[in-house]
This record gives sequence, C-alpha cells and structure tokens, in this order.
Amino acid sequence: MFIRNCWYVAAWDTEIPAEGLFHRTLLNEPVLLYRDTQGRVVALENRCCHRSAPLHIGRQEGDCVRCLYHGLKFNPSGACVEIPGQEQIPPKTCIKSYPVVERNRLVWIWMGDPARANPDDIVDYFWHDSPEWRMKPGYIHYQANYKLIVDNLLDFTHLAWVHPTTLGTDSAASLKPVIERDTTGTGKLTITRWYLNDDMSNLHKGVAKFEGKADRWQIYQWSPPALLRMDTGSAPTGTGAPEGRRVPEAVQFRHTSIQTPETETTSHYWFCQARNFDLDDEALTEKIYQGVVVAFEEDRTMIEAHEKILSQVPDRPMVPIAADAGLNQGRWLLDRLLKAENGGTAP
Amino acid sequence: MFIRNCWYVAAWDTEIPAEGLFHRTLLNEPVLLYRDTQGRVVALENRCCHRSAPLHIGRQEGDCVRCLYHGLKFNPSGACVEIPGQEQIPPKTCIKSYPVVERNRLVWIWMGDPARANPDDIVDYFWHDSPEWRMKPGYIHYQANYKLIVDNLLDFTHLAWVHPTTLGTDSAASLKPVIERDTTGTGKLTITRWYLNDDMSNLHKGVAKFEGKADRWQIYQWSPPALLRMDTGSAPTGTGAPEGRRVPEAVQFRHTSIQTPETETTSHYWFCQARNFDLDDEALTEKIYQGVVVAFEEDRTMIEAHEKILSQVPDRPMVPIAADAGLNQGRWLLDRLLKAENGGTAP
Amino acid sequence: MFIRNCWYVAAWDTEIPAEGLFHRTLLNEPVLLYRDTQGRVVALENRCCHRSAPLHIGRQEGDCVRCLYHGLKFNPSGACVEIPGQEQIPPKTCIKSYPVVERNRLVWIWMGDPARANPDDIVDYFWHDSPEWRMKPGYIHYQANYKLIVDNLLDFTHLAWVHPTTLGTDSAASLKPVIERDTTGTGKLTITRWYLNDDMSNLHKGVAKFEGKADRWQIYQWSPPALLRMDTGSAPTGTGAPEGRRVPEAVQFRHTSIQTPETETTSHYWFCQARNFDLDDEALTEKIYQGVVVAFEEDRTMIEAHEKILSQVPDRPMVPIAADAGLNQGRWLLDRLLKAENGGTAP
Ligand code: FES
Ligand code: FES
Ligand code: FES
Repeated sequence: MFIRNCWYVAAWDTEIPAEGLFHRTLLNEPVLLYRDTQGRVVALENRCCHRSAPLHIGRQEGDCVRCLYHGLKFNPSGACVEIPGQEQIPPKTCIKSYPVVERNRLVWIWMGDPARANPDDIVDYFWHDSPEWRMKPGYIHYQANYKLIVDNLLDFTHLAWVHPTTLGTDSAASLKPVIERDTTGTGKLTITRWYLNDDMSNLHKGVAKFEGKADRWQIYQWSPPALLRMDTGSAPTGTGAPEGRRVPEAVQFRHTSIQTPETETTSHYWFCQARNFDLDDEALTEKIYQGVVVAFEEDRTMIEAHEKILSQVPDRPMVPIAADAGLNQGRWLLDRLLKAENGGTAP
Repeated sequence: MFIRNCWYVAAWDTEIPAEGLFHRTLLNEPVLLYRDTQGRVVALENRCCHRSAPLHIGRQEGDCVRCLYHGLKFNPSGACVEIPGQEQIPPKTCIKSYPVVERNRLVWIWMGDPARANPDDIVDYFWHDSPEWRMKPGYIHYQANYKLIVDNLLDFTHLAWVHPTTLGTDSAASLKPVIERDTTGTGKLTITRWYLNDDMSNLHKGVAKFEGKADRWQIYQWSPPALLRMDTGSAPTGTGAPEGRRVPEAVQFRHTSIQTPETETTSHYWFCQARNFDLDDEALTEKIYQGVVVAFEEDRTMIEAHEKILSQVPDRPMVPIAADAGLNQGRWLLDRLLKAENGGTAP
Repeated sequence: MFIRNCWYVAAWDTEIPAEGLFHRTLLNEPVLLYRDTQGRVVALENRCCHRSAPLHIGRQEGDCVRCLYHGLKFNPSGACVEIPGQEQIPPKTCIKSYPVVERNRLVWIWMGDPARANPDDIVDYFWHDSPEWRMKPGYIHYQANYKLIVDNLLDFTHLAWVHPTTLGTDSAASLKPVIERDTTGTGKLTITRWYLNDDMSNLHKGVAKFEGKADRWQIYQWSPPALLRMDTGSAPTGTGAPEGRRVPEAVQFRHTSIQTPETETTSHYWFCQARNFDLDDEALTEKIYQGVVVAFEEDRTMIEAHEKILSQVPDRPMVPIAADAGLNQGRWLLDRLLKAENGGTAP
C-alpha cells in the first residue's frame, strides 16, 4: 500500500519525447506519459477503458491518444472522444487522468485525490535549471522497496562502510548529526552534519581547488514520500564555513535523490549532483556524474541484497541502534501519512 | 477452469513424429502424444502412476510406452502391462488415456468425460486436406489466456487498427457485420462482413489477378471452445459475389484459427490460410503463409500486452461498445458451456 | 518443513576459503560460512540483527565479521562486539550461530537445538581423507526437493532404466535387495545387493584389471536426513567376494551421496567415488569422477522433470510397487523424525 496524496516524480523532462508515447509503472499502476502539441506533459492511465488494452502500443493523434486495439480515442483529460463505428459516446467513457506539473526539469505526478493536488506543495530543486548550477540527470532502477532506499539515505553512517573509497570518510561512522523534525504539512526532516578540520572524501578531493584539511558539511532535507535535497561541500579549515561564510575556494554541491515506488519490491530512482563552479567544463560534469554512479552502485548492491534477505526471512525482529535516529524519523513521517489516508490505521 | 466436454486440437499431424514421444500441456494437464505401430495417434497422461515421473523422457516400445524411471510399461489405453521385478499387476494400475481423432490434418483430443466423446461433433476443416485447396500449417505459442485471442478473432474492427498494412482496410473499423447465433449443441456464431466496391487489403492485393475495386467478404463461423473457420476473398466489383457467384478471377481463401488453453495464462494457436488457385506454386504458399505470420505477430504483441495489463490491474470494469457484439456472443457461449458442466454455476 | 535436529552437510572443506566469506542457503535459511584465524569454520546466520542486511557482502576482521551496511561487528558465537557511534551494546544484540564440525573433508552443520548437537552422531566417511583411498569431491545443484533425490538413491532398480550405459546393468531391474532397518537414534537402512556371476557395469569395466563375469556388490547405508555411504565393487566370479574375501584384482569403491535442502524445491548434493587402487593415477581419478558426473546428469534430468510434473499435478495418488521397499523405509524414517520434532504430528 502506498501514500497517494503527494507529488511523486514520474520522469526527468528528457525521458518524455517531444512526440510519441512513454510509459512506466508507478505505485503499481500503469501510466502513459506524452506531450501535447504545446509540449505540455499529459499523464493518463495506461489502460483503455474498453477492454484494458495498454495505450502505449497505441498512437498519439495531436493532443489525443488512440487505442490501437479497437480505436477508442482519448483526450488529455482522459475523456473518450471517438468510438469507431458508433455515434454515441456514453458518459463516463473515460480513463483516469493524473495532474502533472513539469518543474525543475522533473515531471511531477499526483496519484491521489485530484482535488487535493496543489502545485505549491512541490519541493524546490532550483539547481536543476538555475543558470548558476550545472548537473547531469541520472536514473537507476531498483529491485527493492523504496523504503529501503529511504532508510539508506537517512542514515549517513553507511557512508563509512558502503562507500569507503568514494563518498565516505572514517569520521562518517561516528559523527552525530543534528536532526530537526518539522511536522507541518506532509512533514520534513533537516539533518545537519559538520565535520570540522577533517579529511575530504575522495569525491571532493578529485575536484577541490585546495589541499589539506577541510570543514565539511552535509545539510539535507528529506520529505515524504521520498524526496532528498542536500547542500554539501568542503571549505578550507577555519575559513568560516560553519558560521555561514563560503569562501570562493570552497567546493559546493547540491544533491538530489528521489524515489517513486514502481511496485512493492521495485523502485524508480532519480538523482543528480549539481555544482556552482566551472559550469562549462563538460568533462567535469561527466566526471562528477560517474563518481556518483559508482557510489550509487555500491548502495544498490547492498540494498537489493537487503531486499532479498528480507523476503527470505521476513519476520525477524530488528535491533535498533543509535544511528537509526534519522531513518526512524523518516519511517515515522511515512507511517503518519499512510495512516492519515487510511482512516487512522496503517497496515 | 476450462470447458472439458468438447474436442480440442492437440497438434498438427506433422507435429507428432512417426516414432517417438511428443508432449504438450493442454488445459493445465501434461499430455503425451505418440503414434502406435499402425501410425494411429495415442494420447496419454504424461505422468506415470507409480511416482509421477514424466513419460516423455521414457521410451516407446511398439504400441506401448515405458517409464524410464523404474520401468513401468503402459499400453495405448493407459493400462500398465509390466512392472519390473513384480509378477502381479494390481488392477487400477493405469494412467489416463484420452480419446483422439486425426482428421483434416489435425489431432483432436477429448479432455472431458470419455463417454461423451463423439467424433461426429468435430468441426470440418476440409481445406486442410482437400486436393482443391493448398495451405501451409502454422503454430504460435501465446503468453495470454485463450479467451483474449477469441475476443480478438470475434471483433474484426481490430483489422483496421492492428493490421493497417496487412489484413486491414479503413473500412473494417466501421462496417457492421451480420451476426447469427445458433445455440444447437455447443453453439455456433456465423458472422458475415461484406465490403462492396472497396479497396482490397494488402494481403489480397499481393496475390490478386485483377486490379481496382473489389467486392470483398469475410464469412466466418466460430464455435466453442475456440474454433474459427472463415471463407474470405475479393472479387472484381459487380461480378456477383454478394449474390453467390464467384468468378474465376476472384481471390478465394479458407482460413483456420484454432486455440487450445495451455494454462490459465498461456495458449496454443494453430492457423492456416488455404487457397484454391495456383496450387502448385510453392513460393506463393510460402508468401501467403509469411503474410499471415506477420499479421499474427501484430495480434500477439497486442494480446500479450493486454494479458499483462489485465494481470496488473485485474479488477477494473470494462466499457462495452457496439463493436463488441461478436465477442460478447462468443463469451456468452463459452460461459454457457462452463456453467452447464459445473451444475449451473460458472466461476 | 525440514527436520532440524540432525547434522547436515554445509560444504566440502575446499568450498570455504582460508580467508573471506562464503554463503549458502540451507533449510531456507541464509547461512554465512568462513574460517577464523585458526582455520576453524564459523557458521552464522547470514543476516545482520540490526536491519537484516546480508553479512556476506560484509568483511571478515580477524575472527569476526563486520556488517558493511552500518558497521555492526559480530564474533564467531554471533555476539555483537561493536556498534559504531555507540558505547553500550544491549544484551541480546546477536545473530544465530550454528554448531559446526569439520570432519572427513566435509563441513557439518547443526541447524536445530544447539544443546542436542553431538559430534559423535556424525556419520563416518573415512574414505574422504584416508591415505588408503583417493577421490575427487563433487557438487551438484538440484531444482528439486531433496526427498525426490533420496527416493532415487534408495531404489536401485532405476539403475537399469536411467543408467543403462553407465552405472546400470539389466540385472539391476529385477534383483531383490536385502533391506535391514535399524531404528536406533535417527535410524539407518542397510541395503545389500549381490549380483553373482553377472556382467559388470560399464563404469567398472572401464577400470577393472580382469575380464569376464564378476560377483558384484552394492552394500549401502542410508541415514536421515539424506546421507548415503556405499561399499561397491566387482570381483572375478567365484573368488569368494560374497563370503567376505576381496582378492587383489577386485575393483573396490566407496561412494558418497549426501543432500541438504536449500529450499522446498531446490537442493544441494555432494558426492564422490573413492577407490583403493592406483592411488596416484590422477587421470584415473578424473576418469572415475567424470563417469559419475555423466551418470548423475542422467538422474538430474529425470528428477528435475519429476519435480516439475509434481508441481503441475500435485494431488494425484501414487501407485506403490514392490521395488519401493527401500524408498518407503527411507520416507518412513524421515517422517518419524519430523513427527518427533513437531510433537507427534508431521505436516
Ligand atoms: S481495448 Fe482499447 S479500443 Fe478496445
Ligand atoms: S515413476 Fe514411472 S516407473 Fe516409477
Ligand atoms: S544492517 Fe548490519 S549494521 Fe545495519
């Protein structure tokens, strides 16, 4: 069972072509995505209401899509506008249409009650399309429930163990983060990790313009269903970073990690690592992207193996540890929303 | 659950070798097929009654088959005739044997109550072995329930959408067929479609000996469980085809499409397209066969995708349209038989 | 459901490296196997008690293993000895540890109540490491429940049918074995088959130092859960083998066939065929090994097909025959143990 009344990511903008049909399963539902003649993204149920043929092997006709089984034609709001061989179109001949917003190069979709879809609630990822930042968009498919990925992202002690040669440092294992919880709306966590006078991770070392010790930070916000935004970087030690001063030599990144459930045991994962320096250095864009890809494969190996063990030994208890503070808060926020949607009782 | 008291096709005659064992799952049951020393087809349960080893990795011995696990030997009626290391063969040491009839190059099998098996009930497909007709037998395996294939065959509006460049014409989408229902015995539908002064399909154009407009027909009979026979062709417009006159230039075909369930989600499909002209032109036989194969792959793509969507979103209602008349009648005949076999209540 | 209070084989000694982590599913449980700094095998649950990550993608640290998700460290008895970022280790922070004994080149594991694990109960396979015998260890993975393999091993009539050109002879089909049952402890069967003045199997012919008729024997002991040890050989006819005299020309083998359930439908299978002649002839070792591999593939083809038919047609009765005596006794001993472990009622 999934939380429905929230904005999920359906795709990077570039995944949906200017013309033609794209499809993807989201929250166990088959979804059709395409652009109308104005370039606006349309999201429809990928299932014809006639006899359930999938529409993605149909045909786009202007703003509409035609089912290529028996020819029913649907407009962007899901209403059937043509039934071949039949004058009358009965009312209610329609398929589900989902509210969609394209913003910050992401296609956001609302799978719940359409009346509650408010685009103002969409989390801001300005660094995807700001002229001051540069990134290359990434996507990974996961053989694991999205909550296992959320757990991973909310506990950065794993950096020390899973990513010793890429994202992690020894200090990651023991540093105590500051965790703030905000229960306004769907809720939000802010997790702040400062490593003062510490070594940089290999990923930062590879691009930094200074050497030696650094004051490093990972300041991230996480909100349900599975949206992470992070401000991370390294500045030469003692140049005032903890007090809010970011000197020009500082390495600064904005990071995105977003998941949407595909099924109960598979997930979509969109990510990027934006920087605010050397914007036109395409080789650097690629280098940073590949660095993240390598590190994220380290996570995927662990998390998919984790999903397998959980399905093999499903009913064993877990032993909580101090480092769980972040992920416990995240799970708590997710459960709260699910309960609220289901009359107070989460499954 | 499947209808059992009816003749199903088990194979083309050529699928079962002169010597040796052939096996196939039909209606979820493992079936062994082979020819006795007279060349007659034998159909037995493909499961030894000793400890359930499959017989197809056994050995044919004359008219009999021997299980190559511990050596039990069975005759064509399924009776055990030898137990190695044991004098006495207990009564009831036997496996199921199915009534089988070889006719019109098809091997017909009866999976229900053997007492009710009457070979006179087998539908006639004379064009498979008549000297006046020529065809090449075809077989396709489907990842879909057989009823989805039946639906497809009973609604020829799909020709316009699924097969625009092969079997279909624009007119196929809107033409209203004449549908006659006969409820004698297991029931029968006769569906007649006349396209007067119309374009030929590409498949007919490719072999016709005249050009220009045609009077075209598709006259087909369908009977449960999944037996389609069709008389189809094109004659030069105004030469009297609708009144029953078929001039020598007319292109005439007899078409066969037959399905047997393998499991609830997979099916066997036998087909052919016979003609009554240029009988000895083997290249033409192959050309017509390949034309049908291409068109049938178009169906398979759609129907297998259809099966997937139905399994992903199983409980959504369907919206009936006018073009459903044929398939509704077909489903009604199938449900009627299933109910009759199960004491009035179909599942 | 599996019998738990008995010694199972987990691996050949060589399967577990001197350093590093090996893992395998046994009785549906994920098991981690490695050697401590003294070379002793450690067997732990392959599932971290923190959040269930698998330990085999962790890291060995001396005698311990560290989970590379969040860094918990466990000692060979399964106790957690370190939680990064946390001083206190709560009692009961531990994972299951299994009693393990390395003997006769096999790694034996006890998956039941540890208090009942007595190494004296381990069946003796002295020919694996005796200087007077030589063998090459073999392993096969099976897509079948282990009891189907036991059935196969306890009914040697199958030699005549499944292995006519390798292990079998015509006489195997009808020879009546002497079967003795011992219900002490977990129970034991002793099955004795003498073929007097008979042909050798092809496998024996290929290595024998004499020609012509032989007195042949297969004397095997089988004990639950799935442990077969066999004394087999051929001596020139009339040289006294049945009376216990083994002349130097006699071909003598000791055979091992051991299974451990992986899941309900898959199994591990360890085997070897040791000889007491020409010990240093490595080509002969390989030749005998390959001969067994070929024969065992014949079994696997049959048994995996058997498993498939049983899953397709699960509820059909079996018809017992005289040759079942051995396998019936084996099944009876298995059921008896399972019932005893489950308060008198086996499932
Ligand atoms: S299923 Fe789409 S038109 Fe029939
Ligand atoms: S299973 Fe066929 S003879 Fe035993
Ligand atoms: S799952 Fe092993 S340390 Fe967290």
